[in-house]
Order: sequence, then C-alpha cells, then structure tokens
Amino acid sequence: MAKSPETEHPQRAFGWAARDPSGVLSPFNFSRRENGDEDVTIKIHFCGICHSDLHSIKNEWGIARYPIVPGSCDYCNQQLENYCPKMTFTYGSIDRDGTPTYGGYSDIVVVDQHFVVRFPDSMPFDAGAPLLCAGVTVYSPMKYYGMADGPAGKHLGVVGLGGLGHVAVKIGKAFGLKVTVISHSPGKEGEAVGRLGADGFVVSSDPLQIKAAVGSMDYIIDTVSAVHVLTPLLALLKTNGKLITLGLPDKPLELPIAPLVLGRKLVGGSDIGGMKETQEMLDFCAKHNITADVEVIPMNQVNVAMARLAKSDVRYRFVIDVANSLSK
Amino acid sequence: MAKSPETEHPQRAFGWAARDPSGVLSPFNFSRRENGDEDVTIKIHFCGICHSDLHSIKNEWGIARYPIVPGSCDYCNQQLENYCPKMTFTYGSIDRDGTPTYGGYSDIVVVDQHFVVRFPDSMPFDAGAPLLCAGVTVYSPMKYYGMADGPAGKHLGVVGLGGLGHVAVKIGKAFGLKVTVISHSPGKEGEAVGRLGADGFVVSSDPLQIKAAVGSMDYIIDTVSAVHVLTPLLALLKTNGKLITLGLPDKPLELPIAPLVLGRKLVGGSDIGGMKETQEMLDFCAKHNITADVEVIPMNQVNVAMARLAKSDVRYRFVIDVANSLSK
Repeated sequence: MAKSPETEHPQRAFGWAARDPSGVLSPFNFSRRENGDEDVTIKIHFCGICHSDLHSIKNEWGIARYPIVPGSCDYCNQQLENYCPKMTFTYGSIDRDGTPTYGGYSDIVVVDQHFVVRFPDSMPFDAGAPLLCAGVTVYSPMKYYGMADGPAGKHLGVVGLGGLGHVAVKIGKAFGLKVTVISHSPGKEGEAVGRLGADGFVVSSDPLQIKAAVGSMDYIIDTVSAVHVLTPLLALLKTNGKLITLGLPDKPLELPIAPLVLGRKLVGGSDIGGMKETQEMLDFCAKHNITADVEVIPMNQVNVAMARLAKSDVRYRFVIDVANSLSK
Repeated sequence: MAKSPETEHPQRAFGWAARDPSGVLSPFNFSRRENGDEDVTIKIHFCGICHSDLHSIKNEWGIARYPIVPGSCDYCNQQLENYCPKMTFTYGSIDRDGTPTYGGYSDIVVVDQHFVVRFPDSMPFDAGAPLLCAGVTVYSPMKYYGMADGPAGKHLGVVGLGGLGHVAVKIGKAFGLKVTVISHSPGKEGEAVGRLGADGFVVSSDPLQIKAAVGSMDYIIDTVSAVHVLTPLLALLKTNGKLITLGLPDKPLELPIAPLVLGRKLVGGSDIGGMKETQEMLDFCAKHNITADVEVIPMNQVNVAMARLAKSDVRYRFVIDVANSLSK
C-alpha cells in the first residue's frame, strides 16, 4: 500500500494530475519529500509534454497509479539510470520511501543530485526542455551504435517526422551525417528539407521512391510507435546497416531474417539515455544551437494539448510554461 | 544461356553432381577453366558436407542450376567476398566467362589466388575442412559483434548443437567466454558439457530452466534454421545483449520490440566470413587445437550421408574423402 505524500512529506507542492483513465488533468495539491543529504529541490520553469505522458494518463500501458502528475522523461529520475530494472520513474512509480512519485507538471520537484543536469547558459528553458526526453532518446543510439564515429557523410534515415524525428534530423546533421527523412506524409517534404535541413525525403508509401533508395543508408532511426513493416526499411540499408527502433508497438513486428544474415544488418533498440549522456547531449546541442521546435502553452491548456497530441497535431513538442501559469 | 564447360574448358575434371531436385548425386565429367594470371589449380583432398549443400541439391532455395557439383562454402568463392551482391558462388552460379560453377565434390578446382587460404601445418585436412564453412560462420560474428573483445568470462549462449553449434562452443571457449548450450534435446547435455567443454546447458522447452537463465547472457549465437520464437532468447540476454542469427528460416520471425528498446538489445545476422577472416580463423583454430568433429565418408556414400543429414543424424559434419575415393 502506497503511503500518502499529502500527510507524510514536509514540502508543499502543487501541480496538475490525471485522476482516472479519461486522462483529464486538473489542479492537484500534494507534497515532496524532505531533502536528504544528496537531494536538491528544483523549481520547475518549463515541462515538455512527451507522448509517453499521453500513454500514461490514459493508462494505455496498464500500469497507471492515479493520481498521476506527468512530466519529464529522464532528468528527474530519482534513483537509478535508464536501463535499470529497478528504476523509479519520475512519475507513476513508488519511491523508496513508499510514496508515489509525481512529475514535472508541478511547481517543484525533489531529486537526488545524481539525477540533476546543468542547463547550458545559452540554452533556452522552453525549447530546451524536450531535449531532456526527445533529444537524448535520439542522441544516445547515435552514439551507442557508432553513428557519430564518422567518417562524415554516412547516411542516416529518420523514419517519422515528429517529436523524436525532427530532433534526430538536427542532431544527425550536427554529427556530420547525411540525413534522409522517411515519412508517409508527402506534405512534410518542404518542412524536412527546407526548414529542418534534411538532405533528402522518401515517401514510405511510394514503392518507386523506396526502390530508388534501396541499399543507400548506413543507419535508420525508426521513431514509429505503431505496428509497421520492417522489410522495406531493412532494404534501404547497406551491408552492415543498423536499424534502430525507438517506439514501443503493442504487438511484435515481422522480422525477415535473410537481410540480417546476408547483409549482416541488425535491428536494435534504445531507450532515452543515462545521466552523463544527457548532460553531454545538452552541451552538444548548446554548442550546435540545437533546440526542439516547441509550442509553449499555459498549464490550463494542457488538456487541449493532450487532445491535439493524440491526433499528432503538434510541431513538434508542447511545452508547459509551468512557472508563469500554474496557479492554485 | 550458360556456356558448356564440357566443351569450352581445357582442364578435365571429375566429381559427383545432382541432376534434378531428387538431390541424388552421381559421377559427373566436366572441366575447369584455363588458369589465368591470378588462378591456381587446387587438388581437392577432402570436402565437408554443409547443410547448404543439402538445400541446394534439392532446390529448396528455388535457385538451382543443374547439374550441381556441391561442396565448400567459402574458401573457393571465385571472385568476390561474402557480402558482395554480385558474388559468384562456389557452385550453382554462372562464372564470369558464362560457364556454370562446380564445387568441391570433385577432384580439382581452379580459383583466383585471392580466394585461396593456407592450411596451417598442424591442421588435419579432414577435420579442418568444415572449419572453412562452419568455423568461419561462427568465428566471424564473434569478432564483428565484439564477443572476442573481452573481458574474459562474458557469457555466450549457443542455440542448437549441430555443425555450427559444436564449433561455436569450441571457438567461444577459446575466446575466453563462458558458454552455455541452449538445446531442445535434453540428451545432448552430456555431450555439450562433458565432451565439448560447455559450461552450462539449458533445455529450451523447459520454462523453469529458461526462467533460471533470464538476464544472464551477454551474447547468443542462434544456429536454428527453422521458424522459432525469439522472445525467450531475448529474455536470456542482459541489457545491451546481442542475439545473432545464422540460420535462414523461410518465413519472418516474430520480433518483440520492447526488449530491444527497454534493454538496448539487438538482433543481428552474419553470413560466413571474408577471406582474410577465414585465414585468421584457421590460424586461430590451429593455435587452439580446434577442429570440427567429423564423420569421414567415401564419395560413393554421399547420398546416404545426405539422407542422414536431412534427419540431423550426424555428429557433427560429414567430410568426403575425395582424393582417396573418387573414381570414374
């Protein structure tokens, strides 16, 4: 049985919480734990809205503990790093002291200093906030799977031009990669090539465009969460090519084995990143003037934002202006 | 239209060929090309029987060109290396001069010197022959996927204890890995642990044994060619674990994505190896006294051997004593 942070914790906190699988968020009084020797209290200025937040408040992963105060994927994980099986999640987990964790849709948060990152001076809080989730989620596999090792000009395909995809284009370019966006939406070509700086665009539903790109890519970052086919993506890879999936489809995908064996290709995954890598990513993005493209909203627009996010109607991340708009 | 090597080539050759999808092999007169500047003629002493030979003579891959003289997976590829899309296969291909290629179930073969390896002095021809196929097929992914990089004691699972699997155990141990055999045949435990030197044995159909081994392995080499489930194998891997498939199932496998993302695991493939790596593997095996376990047969027993191979009734590779038993 979870203890109640309302009665047991000394630091008063306030945020917005979902109470049931309707996912509707509303004001919520709660509290944060007393600072231990390693803890710091952080005032929350901005909080990005991650697609995981939408899954969570509607209990689409079946593990919800209401009330849920969502917000912030990685930087305020409270104990252990991103692949630890005993990880305490920023929200929706039971903390070490037996109380539920509440996330960044709130005024303050108390975290162990191990899980604090330093925002570079030049990095704006609002457009930088989603980098802590989307940024490190694409940066980490680029590093781990050798995409950043050069030589310059290696070819990266990015499947899906959403919150993750648009940052992947920017970070990929900063690593010196040639970047092609693979999307089912022909209308996104201008945005991808004209504004985000991609080198190419392939419409995934057009067999001729897919055929023309067969065997041309060294890496693919696949941000699609829905069930989808891997065979054409594997065909786009060169020998030794790597297809990295970041989404969590709710069913297994079909994996053709011949391309893996005959082309020594691989399918791998990656999940956010560790704290050291998150700091490294922030510093890298600051150096290369990379931020997320964001729509900043006040707290009381969060339910509208969730409804738009469910329709993929956002370019490319909502960020809640917590400090200026959270009122009791 | 393929030219005929019977009339256009100057070097008389003799071997055994399959003439149709019955797969029955019988004596066959043909010829090898005149030696070019880079070519050498090799007298064939022994030739291993690879499972691919069985697929080929029965046209199970649908690309057979009869008559087929099978034999030898990699060392006498005549032009390009193992992942080249324009590769000329040792047998069943059309060579650059328009004539069909014939393999090692024959007295001589003519190959470009680039595709010749040196057999170490201490390596017996018969028990060494299958290393050119099975040996390099397991050695190459161990090198490519970092299994040989240490530190000693990393844990390798080997799925399937057949021609590839039994060599994988030996080479894995020589690389300093802890090796566990994963097999559906409980009866192979004594063989795996007692004789081949494996450190452990898991019966893949026993949920309790699988459960006890969950999260314990750094790498898995999966030699199974049939359609099979990957989920329990992925569960055996630690975070960052690598599952390498070497078989070619005729249908896609089901790939659960969550283990890849949440555990940063990968599924990759590998196909034989390049010439440099084949030489390196031979030298490595000679140094560590590794050979294949073979049943040496005379040429006229090849059809019996094929029938037994089709039932997996071989420990662990048939080798044809070509030089001593091939008679017209």
